Amino acid sequence: MRQDKAEPSSKSISSGFNFPSPAREQRRSLGNMVFAAETMLLTKMLHGIGDPHVQVVLWNGQEISNREGKAVARVLIRDRGALLKLVADPELYFGELYSAQRIEVQGNLLDFLEAVYRVWPLASQGKIGKKLLARFYDARRNTLDGARRNIHHHYDIGNDFYKLWLDERMVYTCAYFSSPDTSLEDAQIAKLDHVCRKLRLQPGEKVVEVGCGWGALALHMARHYGVTVTAYNISSEQVAFARQRAYAEGLDGRVEFIEDDYRNVRGEFDAFASVGMLEHVGTDHYQELGAVIDRSLNDSGRGLIHTIGLNYPRPMDAWTERHIFPGACPPSLAQMMQIFEPFDFSVLDVENLRLHYAKTLEHWLQRYENNIERVTEMFDPAFVRAWRLYLAGSLTAFKTGGMQLFQVSFARAGHNQIPWTRQHIYLPAGAHDGNL
Amino acid sequence: MRQDKAEPSSKSISSGFNFPSPAREQRRSLGNMVFAAETMLLTKMLHGIGDPHVQVVLWNGQEISNREGKAVARVLIRDRGALLKLVADPELYFGELYSAQRIEVQGNLLDFLEAVYRVWPLASQGKIGKKLLARFYDARRNTLDGARRNIHHHYDIGNDFYKLWLDERMVYTCAYFSSPDTSLEDAQIAKLDHVCRKLRLQPGEKVVEVGCGWGALALHMARHYGVTVTAYNISSEQVAFARQRAYAEGLDGRVEFIEDDYRNVRGEFDAFASVGMLEHVGTDHYQELGAVIDRSLNDSGRGLIHTIGLNYPRPMDAWTERHIFPGACPPSLAQMMQIFEPFDFSVLDVENLRLHYAKTLEHWLQRYENNIERVTEMFDPAFVRAWRLYLAGSLTAFKTGGMQLFQVSFARAGHNQIPWTRQHIYLPAGAHDGNL
Repeated sequence: MRQDKAEPSSKSISSGFNFPSPAREQRRSLGNMVFAAETMLLTKMLHGIGDPHVQVVLWNGQEISNREGKAVARVLIRDRGALLKLVADPELYFGELYSAQRIEVQGNLLDFLEAVYRVWPLASQGKIGKKLLARFYDARRNTLDGARRNIHHHYDIGNDFYKLWLDERMVYTCAYFSSPDTSLEDAQIAKLDHVCRKLRLQPGEKVVEVGCGWGALALHMARHYGVTVTAYNISSEQVAFARQRAYAEGLDGRVEFIEDDYRNVRGEFDAFASVGMLEHVGTDHYQELGAVIDRSLNDSGRGLIHTIGLNYPRPMDAWTERHIFPGACPPSLAQMMQIFEPFDFSVLDVENLRLHYAKTLEHWLQRYENNIERVTEMFDPAFVRAWRLYLAGSLTAFKTGGMQLFQVSFARAGHNQIPWTRQHIYLPAGAHDGNL
Repeated sequence: MRQDKAEPSSKSISSGFNFPSPAREQRRSLGNMVFAAETMLLTKMLHGIGDPHVQVVLWNGQEISNREGKAVARVLIRDRGALLKLVADPELYFGELYSAQRIEVQGNLLDFLEAVYRVWPLASQGKIGKKLLARFYDARRNTLDGARRNIHHHYDIGNDFYKLWLDERMVYTCAYFSSPDTSLEDAQIAKLDHVCRKLRLQPGEKVVEVGCGWGALALHMARHYGVTVTAYNISSEQVAFARQRAYAEGLDGRVEFIEDDYRNVRGEFDAFASVGMLEHVGTDHYQELGAVIDRSLNDSGRGLIHTIGLNYPRPMDAWTERHIFPGACPPSLAQMMQIFEPFDFSVLDVENLRLHYAKTLEHWLQRYENNIERVTEMFDPAFVRAWRLYLAGSLTAFKTGGMQLFQVSFARAGHNQIPWTRQHIYLPAGAHDGNL
């Protein structure tokens, strides 16, 4: 992947001799004191996030090294204002300053991020509650209107942009790699099948999907499992794309794409599916979502929710929530259960695929960098850098265990048409079309 | 299975003519009013539990039929006191009165229980919170001493009794039936392997097991997966049995059975296992259990907890908690997460095996009935009937979705020696010994 090539500004503390005038002496001494205070704050901040193995270089060439003298990468802070912002709130401002090129990472961005992500969560243990209180209510509310604005912010920035780095089916969620060297295209197909197998779709059944992205899962279900699908999404660009695709593939009679909120789902279905929407629902709406599922499923209904998740409840990091995914809040498993428990749904199966998301993001980041010239023509430099950081940061969070990917399968409590074992999910490829 | 054969007492409301004396008339009229009030209460109670398809017959032969006139079984109430207790608290007193032979079930006990279990939970929806408040603090506390008393009550009633109806390995937890017609013996071995595969045990590793029953899992791990096991249990009869078995099988060098509480686990291990103990821990001790796991696992540690669970939090039914499992409280999944979330454990896999527990209980009940003469020699009639009801009631709860069986696999958040997929669990039998 591309690395930031910027050089630090010259190491410019003058070492020559100047006959000091008293005023000049005083100014310099005051300046030194301020500077000493600033570097002390920086050292304190680095300690607060767990002393990652990185070296910091300031605009004047001064170097602040890791306590043990270890560094996998260097961070260049280009100006005093950047330093002050960074020490005030590294979680929020690192991303902003990096996007604005006021901070550069010299060395491999992923190595740098991993060095930080490996120690920061440990260092902030015990502060979880405080952080939660401080940030939780900042998240943009996912009311019907708020959700539409939040989704528009991320998903309506241009299908052409997403085409540059997603697979050919435009699946913008964690893939399923039967082995780590599977291609992204194959792994996305395998993920679609993995979901369909878990749902045990039968020809002729009716499926409702909420948050359907560009339509890949709905179309795959209809084509390969013989079901009809009603798919909801509030991203107008995605819905337009999905409709076109259904028409082009001759599936428009069996897949209906509706531009509307999950809360407005109408009808009764055999199966419910949601892949990559729950992150945007907000935990305060989980019971509402549970009620939607409850009224949408028939007596032998079952469903699957695929979502980014966390090991314990905490807000999305401040920069990502503000600049990338407004209103987003991945849940812990206990939080997710607020969808199911009030309605007596039985959770049948939970699978954590976090390493598969790290691998998926590796592919996306690679393709993003391969197409960086096209991206640069489409967006301003701050956007280009922000999205690099978002992809690299997400990859690192999944790799280091800071984020999880949960697939939760569930069914109504009382009926026994549930799979006897999970063996059927792992039958050889080709054995699954339509009739499991 | 054996059915209750008792006949109702004669249908004895006199239809002959008696010249009424005023006092006699008054007494009879008062008696009739009381009786009418009692049957009204009974009807109300039946309505309150959802009008199950059963017919009730009173001591005097009077019949109270289901509203729709449907009945899969008849319940005979033998005396007025029994009726009053039953309408006051059917959940608690049905079991007590059945055990005391003051209530008889005429027809198939399982059909009767299923008729009730299919409607009762639905009828009591919305009352969940109230029931929780009323009962929750009744549960016998699982302090160190309390837990020992509670466990002694159930597990120390005699190994010879359990031998009558468990499999030859004495595994008193849900089996894993690769298909519904697998034998109980094979299904218990398959369960032990299922657990070991999920834990990905490697030869030479150290395992801690808490709540080890009669030692079957610990011995299986040591014999077939080449690990050493330290296994805790506070049932002295079980520990004595397990030690003898380890010695007899030449595994006493690799499996140590310790008669102590899970809270007193010492040492560091590669894997943590607990099968069928969490039901007895009590939700208010989950964080304590999480702390035990946290301090017992090394950096690449992982674990599995296998437990009876619920779709939403509620107490164990009052009769079972009082007479069968004092202190027991199966958790919902959200409640279970209190073990993992405070310690940043990653939940990797949850599997719900409730139908396998229904099948397991089918085998146990069958064997129990096959050995009913031996049981009758060992215990008084109330015990014999109570345990029949407990086995049949549990079977029905798993069959009708009122109880779940969760296997939860977890690992420390930061390390990546976790399985890439779950395919390895489903390799053909024989491919799993020791080296997965």
